[in-house]
Amino acid sequence: MKHILVLGAGQSSPFLIHHLLQLAERHDWFVTVGDRDAELAAQRVNKHARGQAVAVDANDISLLATLIKKANLVVNLLAPAFQHQIAIECVDLRAHMVSASYRDRNVRELNGEAQRKGVLILNEVGLDPGIDHMSAMKVIDQIRSRGGRITSFVSYGSGVPAPDSCSNPLRYAITWNPRNVVMSSEHGAQYMISGKIKIVPYPDVFARSWPVQVDGIGTMEAYPNRDSLSYRELYGLEHTQQMVRGTLRYPGWSETWCQIVRLGLPNETLRIPHLAERTWAELVEMFLPRTVAGATIEERVAFHLKISPTGKIMDNLRWLGLFSDEVVGPVGETMAEAMIALLSRKLVLHPQERDMVVIQHEMEVEYPDSDAPKEKHISTMIAYGEPGGFTAMSRTVGLPAALAVELILTGALPLTGSQIPTHPAIYTPILAGLEQAGLACADRVIPLKR
Amino acid sequence: MKHILVLGAGQSSPFLIHHLLQLAERHDWFVTVGDRDAELAAQRVNKHARGQAVAVDANDISLLATLIKKANLVVNLLAPAFQHQIAIECVDLRAHMVSASYRDRNVRELNGEAQRKGVLILNEVGLDPGIDHMSAMKVIDQIRSRGGRITSFVSYGSGVPAPDSCSNPLRYAITWNPRNVVMSSEHGAQYMISGKIKIVPYPDVFARSWPVQVDGIGTMEAYPNRDSLSYRELYGLEHTQQMVRGTLRYPGWSETWCQIVRLGLPNETLRIPHLAERTWAELVEMFLPRTVAGATIEERVAFHLKISPTGKIMDNLRWLGLFSDEVVGPVGETMAEAMIALLSRKLVLHPQERDMVVIQHEMEVEYPDSDAPKEKHISTMIAYGEPGGFTAMSRTVGLPAALAVELILTGALPLTGSQIPTHPAIYTPILAGLEQAGLACADRVIPLKR
Repeated sequence: MKHILVLGAGQSSPFLIHHLLQLAERHDWFVTVGDRDAELAAQRVNKHARGQAVAVDANDISLLATLIKKANLVVNLLAPAFQHQIAIECVDLRAHMVSASYRDRNVRELNGEAQRKGVLILNEVGLDPGIDHMSAMKVIDQIRSRGGRITSFVSYGSGVPAPDSCSNPLRYAITWNPRNVVMSSEHGAQYMISGKIKIVPYPDVFARSWPVQVDGIGTMEAYPNRDSLSYRELYGLEHTQQMVRGTLRYPGWSETWCQIVRLGLPNETLRIPHLAERTWAELVEMFLPRTVAGATIEERVAFHLKISPTGKIMDNLRWLGLFSDEVVGPVGETMAEAMIALLSRKLVLHPQERDMVVIQHEMEVEYPDSDAPKEKHISTMIAYGEPGGFTAMSRTVGLPAALAVELILTGALPLTGSQIPTHPAIYTPILAGLEQAGLACADRVIPLKR
Repeated sequence: MKHILVLGAGQSSPFLIHHLLQLAERHDWFVTVGDRDAELAAQRVNKHARGQAVAVDANDISLLATLIKKANLVVNLLAPAFQHQIAIECVDLRAHMVSASYRDRNVRELNGEAQRKGVLILNEVGLDPGIDHMSAMKVIDQIRSRGGRITSFVSYGSGVPAPDSCSNPLRYAITWNPRNVVMSSEHGAQYMISGKIKIVPYPDVFARSWPVQVDGIGTMEAYPNRDSLSYRELYGLEHTQQMVRGTLRYPGWSETWCQIVRLGLPNETLRIPHLAERTWAELVEMFLPRTVAGATIEERVAFHLKISPTGKIMDNLRWLGLFSDEVVGPVGETMAEAMIALLSRKLVLHPQERDMVVIQHEMEVEYPDSDAPKEKHISTMIAYGEPGGFTAMSRTVGLPAALAVELILTGALPLTGSQIPTHPAIYTPILAGLEQAGLACADRVIPLKR
């Protein structure tokens, strides 16, 4: 019997755990699900004969080591802050690791040690990062094999409500870790346009959005996603003049979130005394300078931000409840924690609603050794959740990770080291599995004037 | 013989190491100085018979453990990121620890374990934090013992060039960890004014400066320093209506640094490809949107920031070299690292110059049980460095830490746990030692209208 340890039972995990348990009998697996919240873990395992739930505090290294020691493979769905520590333990204790998170520099540097120990640390095999890499690399490798040169690479990822399920004015719902929504882009973003690197500081990220057409959906908006430049090397696109990765939302999100950032609300460092007993209006007031005029909190916020007191942005902030006299309650100590609780409560999918995942790559290609015209390749994957069932987010994060687990434990992915799925050896079988499940990009090619 | 391990041989360390070595014969101590840069450590030890230098990478836990195991006491002058790890090792290996850094939540939570092991982790015994706490607590305790109630507590700390040594237009020189200058206030600041909490997001911190009179120096400027609110509890000032901690600079620093923050230059997350080969003008250009007009980099920066192209701020940015065609060189991978290198090169004390340290507390006091008028207490400590000798920074960071070492190793400070020097048992003997060395606050009291 092979032992799989899944760490983290949050919003992205249900499909993955369900799928692993479905395969458990066939492959003789046993699946242990660990989460801070043991009840949540138990709910995911749902009394399956080949599963068990355990309470795990991610800071409890000795308990983690005990669990990892028993596992052949660990699926690490914990927050980014815990990726490195868990990866170290996995290498030490010779368990493979699969993660849907970004590989940070520390995890990358485990490569040599992981190779020596014969361990595979496979990062970024979820949706974004994950399917985005794999589907992009497939197109890139195809274009290359035809002698094409990619002059512009622009790629978008997103998890939002489906167009038929946008019941709130922000047209957004939390379907993954809400902390990542609240702290989105906290370190700014960088990308390349016309051969020039552009770096956008945090307060400006949401002010630099642009419209994007998505086939079958219509106009969405994008804001720049972290460090697009690092993908030039990872994708082998060092000579591309344009390299942009963006996050898609429905139009209007960015102009609203921009003002939330300008107010300074996404702050996870400063601890606000007696946060739980304060009202939302009282909290927001703290972020206004003393010199701001206006009879009501709404007038003062609009005046400070220099936005219309009667416009759409103020409507959204009001709808979120930022001006309400409601008490915040026991959500933590920082404004970021308060915002996480607020968004988790307000931005929900209702039972009859479904979410949607979009991945879209737009590449401009020239063929230097032929007379063929320049082309624009557009690859789009759209997936919808089932109302009341698995979200598209949970399925598109979970299935690639589950496919990776299956490949590794059946010996079909004989790699070691700290990897991301940009090599055909990894992406080919996983994309094949995704396609079988109906998750594939639709491609179209538009000729461009030379 | 008792063994002292000093970790970190940077700009704040020379006085401390010199002083410990001076006392080493009398107390039968041996002092080991560890730094990434073994030569720098050797320079500090200066071939003293009771000292040795070792190369230590702060990430090399096993080497650190070996060194800490041999030590009775560790002076931890490493960067904030390493405070927790070193403190854990000290508790585990039963070595006392003295640090001039802020005690973060993790280090605070070692209190119980440190008490069980009989270890003292004494944090915040440098200048700021350090002398600021101790001198403030002495005045606060005196006022309390006379039945006074502190209605307003405003406190400033600073390390700048002396007024006679301001040879650069920013009137600033790097006399401590330059990383802390570049990333200053990165998480914003919070304080209390007229009973109201005010939270200032990072981009606004340097825009909310205010003038401060310092006896014998004249007008300086202050910007809010991190989390002033946490000191309400630490100082026992829960009922104070005003609680502000500020950092002092000469007027003009804040308006210039504010624009550097608005550009987004203090970024230690995004790695800029080929940073070393780029010119400063090229780097700064990356932080400008594509839509910015202007024939020269200076015009574009001024236009983007909406500041005068011919004003003082642009003068300062130009003097720093931000628009120059000079190549950056091998300084690291991030813009923050480039800025650290730039500031370390441009903002220096010349051999004939000296630095200055200022601590000033301003407290408003009422006496509820008497007819005594309200009073304003102003306590000011000013210390100057010796040109070519120890800086005031090195002396005021190092002497309190050295005094703490002496008290602990001679058994005169029989405390355990994770502490900061707000208790008379700690601050009384250290302040006495500082006073002997000429480092004491001058106090004056001004009657206020009731």
